[in-house]
Amino acid sequence: MNYNEAFKTAVARVRAEGRYRVFADLLRTRGSFPRARYRVSTGEMRDVTVWCSNDYLAMGQSPCVVGAMKQALDDVGAGAGGTRNISGTTHYHVELERSLAELHEKESALLFTSGYIANQATLATLGKILPGLIIYSDALNHASMIEGVRQANCEKHVWRHNDVEHLEELLKAAPLDAPKVIALESVYSMDGDIGPLREVCDLADKYNAMTYLDEVHAVGLYGLRGAGVAEREGLLDRFDIIEGTLGKAFGVMGGYIAADAVICDAIRSWAPGFIFTTSLAPAIAAGARASVEFLKSANHLREAHQERAAALKARLTAEGFPLIESVTHIVPIHVGDPVLCKRLTDALLDEHGIYVQPINYPTVPKGTERMRLTPTPLHTDEMFDELVSALKAVYAKHARIRVAG
Amino acid sequence: MNYNEAFKTAVARVRAEGRYRVFADLLRTRGSFPRARYRVSTGEMRDVTVWCSNDYLAMGQSPCVVGAMKQALDDVGAGAGGTRNISGTTHYHVELERSLAELHEKESALLFTSGYIANQATLATLGKILPGLIIYSDALNHASMIEGVRQANCEKHVWRHNDVEHLEELLKAAPLDAPKVIALESVYSMDGDIGPLREVCDLADKYNAMTYLDEVHAVGLYGLRGAGVAEREGLLDRFDIIEGTLGKAFGVMGGYIAADAVICDAIRSWAPGFIFTTSLAPAIAAGARASVEFLKSANHLREAHQERAAALKARLTAEGFPLIESVTHIVPIHVGDPVLCKRLTDALLDEHGIYVQPINYPTVPKGTERMRLTPTPLHTDEMFDELVSALKAVYAKHARIRVAG
Repeated sequence: MNYNEAFKTAVARVRAEGRYRVFADLLRTRGSFPRARYRVSTGEMRDVTVWCSNDYLAMGQSPCVVGAMKQALDDVGAGAGGTRNISGTTHYHVELERSLAELHEKESALLFTSGYIANQATLATLGKILPGLIIYSDALNHASMIEGVRQANCEKHVWRHNDVEHLEELLKAAPLDAPKVIALESVYSMDGDIGPLREVCDLADKYNAMTYLDEVHAVGLYGLRGAGVAEREGLLDRFDIIEGTLGKAFGVMGGYIAADAVICDAIRSWAPGFIFTTSLAPAIAAGARASVEFLKSANHLREAHQERAAALKARLTAEGFPLIESVTHIVPIHVGDPVLCKRLTDALLDEHGIYVQPINYPTVPKGTERMRLTPTPLHTDEMFDELVSALKAVYAKHARIRVAG
Repeated sequence: MNYNEAFKTAVARVRAEGRYRVFADLLRTRGSFPRARYRVSTGEMRDVTVWCSNDYLAMGQSPCVVGAMKQALDDVGAGAGGTRNISGTTHYHVELERSLAELHEKESALLFTSGYIANQATLATLGKILPGLIIYSDALNHASMIEGVRQANCEKHVWRHNDVEHLEELLKAAPLDAPKVIALESVYSMDGDIGPLREVCDLADKYNAMTYLDEVHAVGLYGLRGAGVAEREGLLDRFDIIEGTLGKAFGVMGGYIAADAVICDAIRSWAPGFIFTTSLAPAIAAGARASVEFLKSANHLREAHQERAAALKARLTAEGFPLIESVTHIVPIHVGDPVLCKRLTDALLDEHGIYVQPINYPTVPKGTERMRLTPTPLHTDEMFDELVSALKAVYAKHARIRVAG
């Protein structure tokens, strides 16, 4: 056995598929987001505009968030120093969990070190707590949900994306008294479409299933107080477990669930991914809480965000770029080939100072490679002009498919 | 199906076993660690001394760490805003990975959001990259390694804790050319013993196995530059993958592996737990790097730490407390019953201002419940006196087993 060769082969396979990832070495410039500094391989720094951040409202740049973090650093220091159980719970964690519970109108919330681990640990643990559980998972659910469902070690059915008829078919086939969890997302982050929340809740009632909703690309962004699409649709009380992140619209890092106290208590007591890990740094919890609280009453930011996304979609459509239809703030341009996708985005970055990461497999299915744009309220009309002229130039130079119009 | 009842039952089971966890609501007081403020349920704050933090050297309180974090906050803001691939790599991440690679004398390092996910994602991914892999896992490996091994979805053998003869027996039984990984820890954090590192490396050579070493309770603390027990024993080059944390001796949060470039590149390209998660906040990376670099030349802190641990062990032994034998900085007092363990530690906290978390199942096997003390260089002889007199008092009041002497 030659181990080195095996690892080389694994990397070569990724390269051969044109989806080898090169991480852009960036420094955002606080106060002038979405402008940032990009370090090229020679070490030279260049100014770029970031078009693919999930810091959707630029809260990561907000003085209220940064200020809360600095204050917590001064007060209690850097790390938590332990798991939640062993000296790693600070009052910042307690307060953040209260804020999140209140946001989602639930009794409790439970913090995790990331949204990934929140999904994985919670779904896997439901399989332990509910013997005979059957999980119904939307076909386009996030990798972290897929991992969680797999580790739940129970019967599972994948329903065709957003297809409630298919879901009902599958539900109908199981005994009514079998424990069931339906898991879906509100905003699917790569396509920008939205799950059939109300229909799923109706089916859950009909077939006595629990509902699990991933709102990571919606919290802070939808609903009057930023609780997500479930809030906007008046469905907060119909989802048993809502999962969210502190690392996207809230601009910091970490993940959480919000649910009945007994559910959080059970997950807290049984999930290895919660129990056996150092808790979030207190400053992270402090910054996240400041952000959550700020956004509860910052509807103007959400409106500005939607306006910018709609304006960009209209502009790109008018210019003839092949947008993937999106009903949200996500603006994906279809490319359909990993090599071309990387070539276009490399040219945007190197020749035009426009940073858009190519989105390739395994983040999206092969053949659906894309450029995924995420305009924030800070992306101006002038930046739109820059973007469009740069896109036109790189398409003219590199794309086999000509842009119409 | 009554879901509420099922969750209640899951919690009731934990309560019935006497291991229901109540998180102490703490605020450390920067500058006077290990003193902290503890919030009792009425909201009142009390001063306590923390005796169970994994911030082993109090680096979380260090001006160099806190200063680096504040500077990063001022420079680039709070969160990374994306996964490592999609706008979430900053120069802070790049530099921290370089520092860690250099620390462990490896070509590369790879950051994860926690040590838990570093173990889980890396071990699980080895199973994908090395077809036909057999993993040999020490019986007392951490929960995160157990999860990773399970998800590697390959043949696995658990060798009796620290028993190299048993390990060899198992290795011998497999074909010599089958890919193998031997996974162990250096410091086992609940008992304070150390794995047979050199013997494992010899067996790995003999049977052509890769070696995976978890040094989370050793990095920063052992070796001349704080690279861990493998450095102390002169074995850095004989471990293929070294896993560590930024959340214990380094005082911040996050996890990592250090290994050959091609190994890191392969894990980076294939591990869902790495790919699909928002990267560490830049300020976290900045603080961790400051800590790693500081500790490379702070051997006096490591010496002071060992002195304090040895002094506490000697003191408690002389006073007749039943210590679990430990060759490291961990000082565990055997209790052997979850209810008594909680009763003792509750009394320490409520009546004496001494915070020691009871360590119960699933963190340790049932019947081995303990109080786990972690003295830092900042725990003074006076604090030792306070601790001993408090321990005597609570044992006299609550313990069925009398303390000798």
